[in-house]
Amino acid sequence: MSLDLKPYKGTRDIYPEDMRLRRYIFDTWRSAVEACGYEAYDAAILEPLELYAAKTGEEIVSQQTYTFTDRGDRQVAIRPEMTPSIARMVAARRQELAYPARLYSIANFMRYEKPQRGREREFWQLNADIFGAESIEADVEIIALAAAILERFGARPNMYTIKINDRRLIDFIMSQYLSLDAASALKLIKLLDKKSKIPPADFEAAVAEIVGNDNLSKVQDLLKVESVSKLPKAVLNSGKSDDIKSVCNKLAALGVAAEFDISLMRGFDYYTGIVFEVFDNNPDNNRSMFGGGRYDGLVGLFGVEDLPVVGFAPGETTTIEFLKAWDLLPDLAPATDLVLVQLVDGAEQVAAELRQAGLNVAVDFTGRKLDKVIKSVDKNNLKWILFVGDDELKSGVFKLKNLRTGKEFTAEISQIAEIVLES
Amino acid sequence: MSLDLKPYKGTRDIYPEDMRLRRYIFDTWRSAVEACGYEAYDAAILEPLELYAAKTGEEIVSQQTYTFTDRGDRQVAIRPEMTPSIARMVAARRQELAYPARLYSIANFMRYEKPQRGREREFWQLNADIFGAESIEADVEIIALAAAILERFGARPNMYTIKINDRRLIDFIMSQYLSLDAASALKLIKLLDKKSKIPPADFEAAVAEIVGNDNLSKVQDLLKVESVSKLPKAVLNSGKSDDIKSVCNKLAALGVAAEFDISLMRGFDYYTGIVFEVFDNNPDNNRSMFGGGRYDGLVGLFGVEDLPVVGFAPGETTTIEFLKAWDLLPDLAPATDLVLVQLVDGAEQVAAELRQAGLNVAVDFTGRKLDKVIKSVDKNNLKWILFVGDDELKSGVFKLKNLRTGKEFTAEISQIAEIVLES
Repeated sequence: MSLDLKPYKGTRDIYPEDMRLRRYIFDTWRSAVEACGYEAYDAAILEPLELYAAKTGEEIVSQQTYTFTDRGDRQVAIRPEMTPSIARMVAARRQELAYPARLYSIANFMRYEKPQRGREREFWQLNADIFGAESIEADVEIIALAAAILERFGARPNMYTIKINDRRLIDFIMSQYLSLDAASALKLIKLLDKKSKIPPADFEAAVAEIVGNDNLSKVQDLLKVESVSKLPKAVLNSGKSDDIKSVCNKLAALGVAAEFDISLMRGFDYYTGIVFEVFDNNPDNNRSMFGGGRYDGLVGLFGVEDLPVVGFAPGETTTIEFLKAWDLLPDLAPATDLVLVQLVDGAEQVAAELRQAGLNVAVDFTGRKLDKVIKSVDKNNLKWILFVGDDELKSGVFKLKNLRTGKEFTAEISQIAEIVLES
Repeated sequence: MSLDLKPYKGTRDIYPEDMRLRRYIFDTWRSAVEACGYEAYDAAILEPLELYAAKTGEEIVSQQTYTFTDRGDRQVAIRPEMTPSIARMVAARRQELAYPARLYSIANFMRYEKPQRGREREFWQLNADIFGAESIEADVEIIALAAAILERFGARPNMYTIKINDRRLIDFIMSQYLSLDAASALKLIKLLDKKSKIPPADFEAAVAEIVGNDNLSKVQDLLKVESVSKLPKAVLNSGKSDDIKSVCNKLAALGVAAEFDISLMRGFDYYTGIVFEVFDNNPDNNRSMFGGGRYDGLVGLFGVEDLPVVGFAPGETTTIEFLKAWDLLPDLAPATDLVLVQLVDGAEQVAAELRQAGLNVAVDFTGRKLDKVIKSVDKNNLKWILFVGDDELKSGVFKLKNLRTGKEFTAEISQIAEIVLES
């Protein structure tokens, strides 16, 4: 019996063509966040389970996290998200770090979910957070950074929508405006979070069950509110929507449009202020791409003085879906520039010189017939081929061929890199 | 009660200064292998457990692998190494891929080991393999690549030793020369693999127990053999040491020294031909750094036509120990070039222009007193600071300061990037 050819369910083998896309995305993320002063960190893939017990959404911990007991009888989890890890890391160096501390990571995570388009059991995310900045400039920076990343991928503002809300506003509406107790409020929040996935009639019935028939119209009216100024007086006067307005105005000054959306909740329990989510406007991929927000209470859970934090986390697969939907995927070439066909011993020295000149050179030492060599070079999507035999080594003049155009060149070693790199 | 500040046992939190080192190592690996025509791939961190049942060393699977049962009742493992995953990936595209296929990954792994210097429960490795190349040119390329990587890190040939052996030679010695049955041979191999960690007297006693007192001197004599030509005639005539000699000669022609070491075994069960290991020569860090070899029987286990493969896998932590021991660690600066102190609204536009010019700019919008800002910039090990207030925005002339030298500059926006990037 032979071994199974398939990777673990819900995960993917990343062959070179997919890896080039992954690296393009990671490199774009990296250059975007480093341009704004973020420094890279990393953490281990395995964490003590208790790290997630406190503030990650209940569904994620109890149903979606990969947990097990290690050989030393410790309860562990494969991380389902980065936020608790980086909150711990910052807490551990609470005194040593300088604030505001801008930190980012590009890392993999696992969740036990039903595999579907744009959602895999192992997934990669950028996490970018700014620690120790209380003012809304931090919220503005993070949301503007989300837009800047999409811009670097070639997106135009009409391709996506940024929606924002505020947890303090939600809390005020739940406890004061709708007079719900904590349990009912949580139910309503979870329900609103799933609104787009539930048929309207079912949604209405579920709302009524939580808030009572008397309050149903209040909720329905709220859900129709499209700008902060149209909120009911009682809500507006609380001041809980002021930051949304300020953040939107400051973003507008930077050329970034953000819309208030009262139904925006975000799944994680740790958010405490402004939250936002970026939606793809493409009718073929009309979905939430990623989001983030402010979570001022997480660092303090580690027994140190609390710190305000704002962050966000776009994912690789949703980014790919977005780029595909808008035809923004670039044409990514292999890393290898040239295949050197070694017809005699001693060709390796030529390869070494070409590498010195900056070329990535694969040596074909198989001694196969030329048509087989070319077929293999073609299959690998490579363009340039160089023949190195006795005559070439003696004369120092080589035959170079572009397999795409069929064009042949006669060149000395010193000219080859230039010809290839300029093509 | 507050949450624990520590990461999972045997793992490390990677703060920016450590991350810069990690990225330096990964970037160096990447440029070295891509220069030789290797293309990047990746695989998921979780794999079906059965993937490792066949050929990974028994100790690694039974004692060191993180295994558990997932929520769908599947037996899974956090990958302890990459070789079985990439063998599966190549087998799954056995017909589609072009050969020789040069593939590499930089990825994390977990093993449940006793944490010690240079050994962590989560660790990162480069894996580079060449698939579908039968001839010893592939072995030579891989070993030369190992040396080329160390060279890129600034190592000189006197700093490390490359030792090589051949599994076919070992097998011949075990079964023919020492007439051992398979079980005894395996015992002796495992014992030789641990030779350096066992006191000489204990080692001798253990060898005698396996081979019998009559054969002990035969083994002792073998262990004294320092070059292939000094092997006993009966062994030499088998031809099983010919490849070692050829590989060493071809490496020598490339300027790479490799030494025959008959006691070199390598821990994994899948090797079938030439094996090698690179040792640090530094007396403070005299240890095996990494190794590799030929494993021609692995791809075929997946029910496809077999493929010859040669590969190797250096690790991050052993590389760091090597660089430390030889004082080869470079001085790595943060990614952020400049901190822009925003004294008034509108400074963000200046930051945007500087980013356009290629600078990584962190904006300090805290409104703190200047000495506090400078203390924080210093703490982050950053060099340049730029002040943006009303006067500067009006005049277009800015005050730029190098905190390392104390030198101040007066510059227009267009000059700032140049001054900073040239420093």
